[in-house]
Amino acid sequence: MATKISPLSGFPELLPADRVVEREVIDSLSRTFELHGFANIETRVVEPLDRLAKGGEIDKEIYVLRRLQAEGADDNTGWGLHYDLTVPFARYVLEHAGHLEFPFRRFQIQPAWRGERPQEGRYRQFLQADVDIVGRDELPFHHDVEVMRVMVEALDALPLPPMSFQFNNRKLIQGFYRGLGLPDVTAAIRTIDKLDKLPAETVAELLEDAGASAEQAARCLELATIRTPDASFVDRVRSLGVEDELLDQGLHELAAVIEGCAAGDHRGGHRKVTVEANLRIARGLDYYTGTVVEIFMEGYERLKSAGGGGRYDALASDGRTTYPGVGVSFGVSRTLVPLLAEGVLTGSRSVPSAVLVAVTDEDSRAVSSAAAAALRAHGVPTEVAASAQKFGKQIRTAERRGIPYVLFPQADGTHQVKDIRTGDQWDVDPATWTPPAEDLHPRVVAARTTTSTDDGDESP
Amino acid sequence: MATKISPLSGFPELLPADRVVEREVIDSLSRTFELHGFANIETRVVEPLDRLAKGGEIDKEIYVLRRLQAEGADDNTGWGLHYDLTVPFARYVLEHAGHLEFPFRRFQIQPAWRGERPQEGRYRQFLQADVDIVGRDELPFHHDVEVMRVMVEALDALPLPPMSFQFNNRKLIQGFYRGLGLPDVTAAIRTIDKLDKLPAETVAELLEDAGASAEQAARCLELATIRTPDASFVDRVRSLGVEDELLDQGLHELAAVIEGCAAGDHRGGHRKVTVEANLRIARGLDYYTGTVVEIFMEGYERLKSAGGGGRYDALASDGRTTYPGVGVSFGVSRTLVPLLAEGVLTGSRSVPSAVLVAVTDEDSRAVSSAAAAALRAHGVPTEVAASAQKFGKQIRTAERRGIPYVLFPQADGTHQVKDIRTGDQWDVDPATWTPPAEDLHPRVVAARTTTSTDDGDESP
Repeated sequence: MATKISPLSGFPELLPADRVVEREVIDSLSRTFELHGFANIETRVVEPLDRLAKGGEIDKEIYVLRRLQAEGADDNTGWGLHYDLTVPFARYVLEHAGHLEFPFRRFQIQPAWRGERPQEGRYRQFLQADVDIVGRDELPFHHDVEVMRVMVEALDALPLPPMSFQFNNRKLIQGFYRGLGLPDVTAAIRTIDKLDKLPAETVAELLEDAGASAEQAARCLELATIRTPDASFVDRVRSLGVEDELLDQGLHELAAVIEGCAAGDHRGGHRKVTVEANLRIARGLDYYTGTVVEIFMEGYERLKSAGGGGRYDALASDGRTTYPGVGVSFGVSRTLVPLLAEGVLTGSRSVPSAVLVAVTDEDSRAVSSAAAAALRAHGVPTEVAASAQKFGKQIRTAERRGIPYVLFPQADGTHQVKDIRTGDQWDVDPATWTPPAEDLHPRVVAARTTTSTDDGDESP
Repeated sequence: MATKISPLSGFPELLPADRVVEREVIDSLSRTFELHGFANIETRVVEPLDRLAKGGEIDKEIYVLRRLQAEGADDNTGWGLHYDLTVPFARYVLEHAGHLEFPFRRFQIQPAWRGERPQEGRYRQFLQADVDIVGRDELPFHHDVEVMRVMVEALDALPLPPMSFQFNNRKLIQGFYRGLGLPDVTAAIRTIDKLDKLPAETVAELLEDAGASAEQAARCLELATIRTPDASFVDRVRSLGVEDELLDQGLHELAAVIEGCAAGDHRGGHRKVTVEANLRIARGLDYYTGTVVEIFMEGYERLKSAGGGGRYDALASDGRTTYPGVGVSFGVSRTLVPLLAEGVLTGSRSVPSAVLVAVTDEDSRAVSSAAAAALRAHGVPTEVAASAQKFGKQIRTAERRGIPYVLFPQADGTHQVKDIRTGDQWDVDPATWTPPAEDLHPRVVAARTTTSTDDGDESP
C-alpha cells in the first residue's frame, strides 16, 4: 500500500474534531424532526437508471455502476447513484405504499452524488437532510405550514449561522400572470427567475420579447420586488390591481405559511431564523405547484441556496393512485463544509474521552484499566494511556487530544484527578466522580474568526 | 413516474418500525465505542480502483463508477465503491496522518458494496461497524486486548441474540507448525482453514500431500480441536510437546485476550456474550499477524461469521512509515436484516410520536397545534391529527401508528389525555405532562417468535 495518496476533488472528508460538528448537526436535526413525529428512513443508494435520468441537465451528472470484471451484456448494472433524496423517496413510497400510514411524515439524512465540477459548497458527494409529508390521493394545505415550520425550528436549533427562509407560492405567481393577461405564463415565470442574474431592464425586454406589453412587464417586475417579513405583501399585491381566483388562493396560502412559520416563537423570542415572503422566488419550473421556499445562510449568500423545497401535487404515481407531497431539503455538506474549512466551527476535542487514566508502569496497567471501567460504568468516556511514559508526557498527550482530565491511580489504592487546564488536582472516587456536564462530551465551538490570522508571526 | 416498481435483489430497505431497530443498534454501538474513547469518522464511499483491486477474488465484486453521458477517455472515473471499511480507513490514515494523534482509536459505521450473489445475510449494500486502533511505527500488544474487549462490551449491550467470540492467534499457529517442523507453514494454515468444509481425514490427507508426515498431520488436527472458554488451552497445547519461541508468544497473547475479554464483567454477571479460544480459527491468510477473531450469533450459525478481525502489523505504509493496527468489524446488516425479515425484532411503533393531538374541527386546528407545541417544548414527540374526523377515527389512526396517547383539547381550554391501550382518560396540562419514560420513544421489541404462526386462524 505504498501508493501515493492525494485527496479526491469534490469528496470532502472530515477530521475527527470536525466530524463532531457534523454529527451534532445530524443529531440536532433528527431530534427536531422526531419531536414533530417524522419517522426516519434510509433508502438504498442506487436506483434504476430509467428512474434517475429524465432527459434534463442533471442526467450527465449521474454516476452509473458497472461491475469491474463483468463483460458483454453484464457490463452495466442499469443502476446509478441517486443525486437527491426525492427520487428515491418517491420510489420508496410507491414500493412500500401498502405498508405505510398516510399522511406519511418522513425524514432522511443521507449522502447523494453528482458528477459536477466541484467548488465551494458544491461537492460530488454531499449530505442532505430532507423532511416531507406525503398523502395518498390528497394532502390538505395545512401540511405545507407544518413541514415548513418543522424545518424553521430544526435550523433554528443548529449551531450554525442564522438562516433566512424566503417563501413564495406558485399559484400566486401563475394567478397574477394569468390575471394580468400574459400570453405565456410559464415563459414569464422562467424569465422572471433570471432576475438574480440579469438587470431588471433586460428581464423586462425579455418579457416583452415573449409577448408581454410594456405595462404587463412592469407589473411583473413590480410583483417580483415585493418582499415582506409578514403578511403585508397581500395588500401590496392587491394594490397592483390584478384579479384572479388562483392569485387569491396563492395569497391566502403564502400568508398562512409566513404567519405559521413566524408565530409562536418556541425559544422565548431568541429565534435566529428569519422568515420572509419574497415574490421573486420561483424555484425551477417542473414539479412545484404551490408553496415554494429557498433557504439562505446569512453571511454565506455566495453559496447560493442552502436548501429549498415546496409543494408538489404528484410526488409519485403508480397510474391508479397519486401521492401529493410537500417537503424541504437542507444541504448539510453545502453549509457545513465551507464553515469547517474556514475554521468557523470545530469540535472542542478530537476524541470522545473526557478522562485519560495515567499508567504508572506497565505492570500496573490493570489498575488503570479498572479505574477506567469504573468511570465508564456511569457514563464517563475514558481512555487509558497507551504507554507508561513520565506523567508530564502523559499529560501532554491528553492536552494534544483536548482531554480535560487526567486520573492518577495512587499507590494506596485511592485516585486523584487533575484538571489540566487549571492545574488543580484533588481526590476522587472513579466509581462516583463525574466531570461537569460541559466537559463530558465534545461540544461544537467557534474555532476562530474568519478574519483573524492563524499565527501572530505573520503580522507585518 | 408511472414505471412499475420492483425491489432490487441484495439491496434491503427497512420500513420505519424496523429502521427503529437499526438506529438503536447504531446508537448503542456508538455509545459503547465512545465510552472507550473511540472517535467517529466517515470516509467517502469511493476509492481509486488501484487501491481497491488487489488481484484477489473480491475484485470482480467491485462496483465501478462512470459518468452517464461521458464519452471516450472520460468514460470511467477510475473509482469504485468500497467493499469494506478497512481499505478506506488505511487510506484515510495515510492521507491525514499529519493531523491525527497516534495511537488513533476510531469507529466507523457505514455501508459497503459488493456485487455478489445475494442470499440471507449477504447483501450487495450492507452496513458495517468497525473499531480499530492504529499506531505509528509501533502498537503495543495491550491494544489487542483493549479493542476486542470494546467489541465484546458493544455487542453485549445490543438488543440482539447472544454473540460468541472465537479467538485464536496467528503466532500460535505459525509457531506450532514451525516447531513441529512442517515444510510449508503457510500451506498448512490454508489447509487447516478448510476444516469447516471437509472431514478431518481429508484435511489430514491434504496436509500429507503438502509434505507433512502422518504424525505431523495428526498433531495439526489435534491443535485445531482445542477449544476452551478460558486459558486452559495453554496446558493442552503444551501437552502436545511442541517447542517454539513464536508459539510461546502466541500462547501468551491469546491467554491475555481471553482473560481480558472474559474478566471484569461490566453488568453484574449477566453478560450474554461468550468468549472462547478456538484454535481452528485462522481467518484467511493475507494480513493478520497475531490475534484473530470470528464472531457468531447464537442460533444463526447458518449466517456464518457475524463479524471478525485481528492484528495486522502493516495496516498501511507510505514507504517511510508503517502503521500497525488491530481491529474488529461487525456486520450490522448481516445480523439485523435476517432478524427483521423473520420478525424476531421490530420497533414498538412506526412513528416517533408518543402523543397524537386530536382536532375538533378545522377552525380550531391552531388550538391543537398550540397543545402540540407545549408538549414538544419539554421533549414529548407529538403529531397533530391530519383531519378533523370523528374522534373514534382519530383514535384508530393513533392505534394503527402505535401512538399510545391521544390528547383532546376541551371547549373550556383544558385538556384530557387518553391512554388508548387501557381506555383511561384524565385531565393534563400539556405544558407539564410527560408520558412515562417507556412510552416516550419507540423501543426495540420482540415482534413474534419464529416458530409461532402469525394468525390464530391458521390452526388446524
